[in-house]
Amino acid sequence: MKATLDRIVATSRTYTQNGTLANYIPELAKANPNALAICICDHTGNCTQAGDFNTAFTIQSVSKIVTLLYAFEAYGEDVFSRIGVEQTADAFNSIIKLETRNHGKPLNPLINAGAIATIAYIAEHEGKGTFRKLSTFLRKMAQNESIHVNQDVYASEKRTGDINRALAYFQKGVSSFSAPVEIVLDTYFQMCSLEVHVKDLARIAQVLANNGVLIESGERLFSEKTAMMTKSIMTTCGMYDSSGHFAVTVGIPSKSGVGGGILSVVPGQYGIGTLGPALDEKGNSAAGIELLSQLSNELHLSIFR
Amino acid sequence: MKATLDRIVATSRTYTQNGTLANYIPELAKANPNALAICICDHTGNCTQAGDFNTAFTIQSVSKIVTLLYAFEAYGEDVFSRIGVEQTADAFNSIIKLETRNHGKPLNPLINAGAIATIAYIAEHEGKGTFRKLSTFLRKMAQNESIHVNQDVYASEKRTGDINRALAYFQKGVSSFSAPVEIVLDTYFQMCSLEVHVKDLARIAQVLANNGVLIESGERLFSEKTAMMTKSIMTTCGMYDSSGHFAVTVGIPSKSGVGGGILSVVPGQYGIGTLGPALDEKGNSAAGIELLSQLSNELHLSIFR
Amino acid sequence: MKATLDRIVATSRTYTQNGTLANYIPELAKANPNALAICICDHTGNCTQAGDFNTAFTIQSVSKIVTLLYAFEAYGEDVFSRIGVEQTADAFNSIIKLETRNHGKPLNPLINAGAIATIAYIAEHEGKGTFRKLSTFLRKMAQNESIHVNQDVYASEKRTGDINRALAYFQKGVSSFSAPVEIVLDTYFQMCSLEVHVKDLARIAQVLANNGVLIESGERLFSEKTAMMTKSIMTTCGMYDSSGHFAVTVGIPSKSGVGGGILSVVPGQYGIGTLGPALDEKGNSAAGIELLSQLSNELHLSIFR
Amino acid sequence: MKATLDRIVATSRTYTQNGTLANYIPELAKANPNALAICICDHTGNCTQAGDFNTAFTIQSVSKIVTLLYAFEAYGEDVFSRIGVEQTADAFNSIIKLETRNHGKPLNPLINAGAIATIAYIAEHEGKGTFRKLSTFLRKMAQNESIHVNQDVYASEKRTGDINRALAYFQKGVSSFSAPVEIVLDTYFQMCSLEVHVKDLARIAQVLANNGVLIESGERLFSEKTAMMTKSIMTTCGMYDSSGHFAVTVGIPSKSGVGGGILSVVPGQYGIGTLGPALDEKGNSAAGIELLSQLSNELHLSIFR
Repeated sequence: MKATLDRIVATSRTYTQNGTLANYIPELAKANPNALAICICDHTGNCTQAGDFNTAFTIQSVSKIVTLLYAFEAYGEDVFSRIGVEQTADAFNSIIKLETRNHGKPLNPLINAGAIATIAYIAEHEGKGTFRKLSTFLRKMAQNESIHVNQDVYASEKRTGDINRALAYFQKGVSSFSAPVEIVLDTYFQMCSLEVHVKDLARIAQVLANNGVLIESGERLFSEKTAMMTKSIMTTCGMYDSSGHFAVTVGIPSKSGVGGGILSVVPGQYGIGTLGPALDEKGNSAAGIELLSQLSNELHLSIFR
Repeated sequence: MKATLDRIVATSRTYTQNGTLANYIPELAKANPNALAICICDHTGNCTQAGDFNTAFTIQSVSKIVTLLYAFEAYGEDVFSRIGVEQTADAFNSIIKLETRNHGKPLNPLINAGAIATIAYIAEHEGKGTFRKLSTFLRKMAQNESIHVNQDVYASEKRTGDINRALAYFQKGVSSFSAPVEIVLDTYFQMCSLEVHVKDLARIAQVLANNGVLIESGERLFSEKTAMMTKSIMTTCGMYDSSGHFAVTVGIPSKSGVGGGILSVVPGQYGIGTLGPALDEKGNSAAGIELLSQLSNELHLSIFR
Repeated sequence: MKATLDRIVATSRTYTQNGTLANYIPELAKANPNALAICICDHTGNCTQAGDFNTAFTIQSVSKIVTLLYAFEAYGEDVFSRIGVEQTADAFNSIIKLETRNHGKPLNPLINAGAIATIAYIAEHEGKGTFRKLSTFLRKMAQNESIHVNQDVYASEKRTGDINRALAYFQKGVSSFSAPVEIVLDTYFQMCSLEVHVKDLARIAQVLANNGVLIESGERLFSEKTAMMTKSIMTTCGMYDSSGHFAVTVGIPSKSGVGGGILSVVPGQYGIGTLGPALDEKGNSAAGIELLSQLSNELHLSIFR
Repeated sequence: MKATLDRIVATSRTYTQNGTLANYIPELAKANPNALAICICDHTGNCTQAGDFNTAFTIQSVSKIVTLLYAFEAYGEDVFSRIGVEQTADAFNSIIKLETRNHGKPLNPLINAGAIATIAYIAEHEGKGTFRKLSTFLRKMAQNESIHVNQDVYASEKRTGDINRALAYFQKGVSSFSAPVEIVLDTYFQMCSLEVHVKDLARIAQVLANNGVLIESGERLFSEKTAMMTKSIMTTCGMYDSSGHFAVTVGIPSKSGVGGGILSVVPGQYGIGTLGPALDEKGNSAAGIELLSQLSNELHLSIFR
C-alpha cells in the first residue's frame, strides 16, 4: 500500500497546478498550493501515509460531516424536519434557494446554509456548549486530543464571513431557526478552523467505514443507521455541485473543504484523508480528486461496482 | 379641492378592507387598519387635507426617496456606479438578484437592497453623521423640525430586521460596499422609523414637483436634474413589483412604505401624501392606491396623458 | 428643427461603433452597422428627417406596440387577465419567469413571451385573419399602404426562431393560451418582418402622441385610455432590461427593436422614429439611444420634467 | 423470496392512496391507481413476482436509462461534452437551468431536458434509425421481443408534449444540438410510450446488476465502465429532486417514470422492477418507493451499508 500511495501521489502532484488557493478567507491563501498528501486507515486500524502528511490544515467544510453525524446520532431523523437532503446545482455558498424553495429550509446539510442550520438546530437543544460537544466528538473519532482551533484562521473567518452571516440572518429572518445568530456563526467558524492532518481525516472516515465503531476500543460512537444516512448524503451532496461528476469518476462517499482536505469512506474497508490546497472552480481540491480517482480505479473502490 | 378630497376618501375607505397590516415588524401591526388620509400641497404652497390626517405613522420605505435625493445631489451620477436603476419582478426584500446579477450591485435604489447600498455609499463619504444629515435634509424638505424617530418602531426594526441584515451582509461579502454593516443598518432602521403625517409627505413631494425649490423661501434644495432622475425612478420602481400596474392605472411618480404611506409627485403641480396602513400583497397601501387612482382619473393627473 | 436633427445625427454617429448587429437572425447581420437616421412628426403632421432616412429596416419588436394597441382597443383591460405589466430584470427573450412566476403569465407585453401571448390572445378571438388585421392597423397608423413583409427576413426568422418557439410551446404547455402555436408564431414572425422607414415609426408614434387621433383626417384609431396605457407600459418596459436607465437619461416613452429601430412618443407633441442597427448588449440601438438622449436634453422632452 | 414479496406488497398497498395518477398525459390518467407489483431477478436469472405483475404500463422516464446506456456504450465519455451529471433541485421538466447554467447544457441525462439532449446526440450520429436502435437494445436487455409502442399513449404524448417541445426548441435555439427537433421529440415520445411489465424492468436492471452481461447467454451488452457510470448517475439523479431522500431511505440505484414504474439495481445481486401508478408530488411512484424501502431494510440492500 505504501508503494501504491507514493506512486499515486507522485503522478497526481502535477494536478496541484490545475487549481488555486481559496482566497476569500485571507488566511487560507497562505497555504502551500503544491502540497499533496494522503492517509489510508484500513479495517484493522492500520494507517498508511504518503506525500506531505505532516502539513497541517484547517478542516473547513469537512467538519460538516462531524456536525451531521452528531445531529443524526443525538436527534435522529427529526433533523430532516429542518434541513433537506437534496443536491443543488447552485454554488456551495448560494443563498438563492433559501428564498425560492422550502421557505428557508436549506437543501442539504453539506452546503454552507445547511451546515449553519444544523448547528442552529443543535444549539437550540444544547446552548452555548455546542462547540465544545462537537469538537470533543470530533477528537474522539480522530483519536487525537491535540486537535485545536487555529486562532489565525478563526479570526480570519470571523472577519470575512459576511456571506455566511447573510445565510444565517436570512434563515433567522424567515424563522428557520431560533438560536442566536452570533452563537451559531461562532460555532460554525470555530468548527471550520479546527486544524488537522490527513491522518485525522482518515481516522474519522474509518469510524464511518466501520459503521460507527472505533476499531481500537470497540466503542460504538454512533449507530449503523446514522452511518448509512451520512454516507448516502456524502455521495449525493458531498462535493458541492460536482458531486455527480465525482460519483461517476471516483464513486467513494466523500466530503471536501476549502482548506484542501477531502474525507472519504470506502464502506467496510477504508477511511481516507487527502490534502491538496489548490482548489478547482467548484471549491474542491484539484489534485485530491485526481489522487482519489487513480486510487479508486486501481483498487476498485467505487461503491457503484 | 377640499370637497373632492373628502368625497374620494369616503368612497375609497372601503378598500382599507382589501389589505392587511404589515406584521413582520411587530410594532406596525398596532396601527389602525381602517385609517385613510390624504394631503395635497399645490404650487402656491397651499395644502388641503382630508380623512385621518392627524394620524402619525412611520415613513418606512418612503424615506428611500429622501436618501436617493441626498445621494444624487451630493454625488451625482456616480451613484449609478454602485446601484442600478432597473425594476425587478422580485419582491421588495428579495436577495436573489444580488447573487445572480451584476455581482452584488442592487437593481435599483427603491428596493431594500438598493436603499441599504445607497446609505452605505453615503456613509463611506460622510461617516457616522449620515443619519443626522439625512434626517436634517428630510426635515428641511418637510419644513417640520418636529419630525423624530419613533423609538418603539426603531427598536422593533432592529430586533426583527434579519432579512435586511442578510441583504447588507451579502453585499458586504461580495465587496459591494466597505462601510461598516452595523452603521449602515442602524441608519437604515432609523430612517425607516421617522414618524410623519400625510402633510409631511405632501410637502416633501411638493419640493420634487417644484424641481427642487422650496416654495415658501425660494431656496433650492436640489437641482432640476436630481429631481428628474428621482421622478423617473419613482415611476419605474417606486411601487415595488407593481410599479408597472400603478403606472398604467394611476400614472403619478410615487413611493410607498409598509407603514401605509405613499408620497406622490405631479410634476409642476402637486405634492401628495396619503396614509392607509392596510397593505396589499405587494406591500403597498391598498386604499391609498385606490384613492390615488380616483384622484388621478378625476383631475387628469397621469403623466402619460 | 432640420438643422438640429442634422447636427445631432452627426454628433451621435460615432456611437454606432459602440454596438454590434443582431446576429441571431442571420438576415439582420446584413444591415449597415453605421446607418443612423431620425424622423420627427409634430402635432401639425409636419415631419422632419435627417441621416439615412431612406434606409429600410424590419420593424422587429417595435411591432409589439402595434399589437398591444390593437389588443387594448379591441378587448380593453381584459388583456391584463393574460399578460402582466411589470418590468423584468431578465433578458428580452428569457423563459425563466414563465416557470417561476404567475403560472406562465408573461410579465409584460413588450418582451417576447408577452408579445407572443398577446398575439395568441388576439388569435383566439380573430383566428387566421390576425396578421392581416394587425398589419392593416399598422399601415393605417403609418399612413403607408406600401409597408410589406420582407420575405428574406421572414424566412430567416422562421428558420432560426427556436427560442421563440420554446417561449410559445412553454406557454401552451402550461395552458396559458389555446391558439395553435404555429399560427401564433407565424403571425409573430410576420409582424417582426414588416419593412419600414423611420418616417413610418414617427407617424405611428405621432398617433400615440395625439392620443389616438390621425392628424390629417381627424379619424380616431384608438381611445385616449388605450393611448395612456400603452405610453405607460412603453415607459416602464419598452427598452427591455434597460428601461429604467432609459427613463432616467431620456425620459420619452419608447420601444426598440433588434432591427435597430426605436419608436418614441412625446405626449401631445412629437412622434419620433430612429434607426441605428448596431445594438448594445441589451438589444437596443446604441446610437439611437444617444441620439434620443441628446434630443431630449436639448428640446426638454422628458416626461419627468 | 416469494413470501417476502407478497407480504411487502400487502403492507405497501395502502401507500397507493398517498399519490395521484399523472394527468398531464391524458392517457396515463386511465391507469388503475391502486395497482402495485414487483419483480426481482437474481444473479442466476431466476425471477420472482408479486402483486399485479400482469398489469402493463408505459415505461416513460425509465427509458432514459436505456438511452443513456446506449449513448455511453456507443460514444463513451464524450457524452459528457453535451450533458452534465449533476443533480438539480428543480423539477423534472424544469427549463430554468437551460437558461441560467452551462449555456444550454442540461444538468443531467435523467431529467427531461437531458434525455432529449441525449437522444439528439445519438440522432446526430445515427439519424432516423435512432428509435429502432434504442428499442432493439431495450428489447434485448429485457429479453422480450414483444415490447412495443402503446399507440394511444404515444398519440397522447405527441398531442400534449408542449413543455418537452419547449425544452427541445430552447436547446436547439442556443445551439446545444443540431439534430432536427421533430425527429428528436418523436424518438423521445416513442421511447416513453413503450409498454412493459415489471418483469421487463427487472430483467433490464439485472443486466446492470451484472455489469453488462446477459446471464442466460453470457453475452456482454455493455462494458463494466458503462454500467458503473450509469449506476452512479441513477443514485445521484434517478429519482428527480428527491434522489437524495431516496438514497438516504432506500439506497438502491433506481430510475422512476410517471407511468408508475421504477427500475432498481442492487449491484452484483438483483434487478428489480416495480409498478405503482399513483405518484407523489415529485413524480415518483408513492407505493413503489414504500415497497422498495421495506425491501431494502429487510434484505439489507442499500449500497451505503
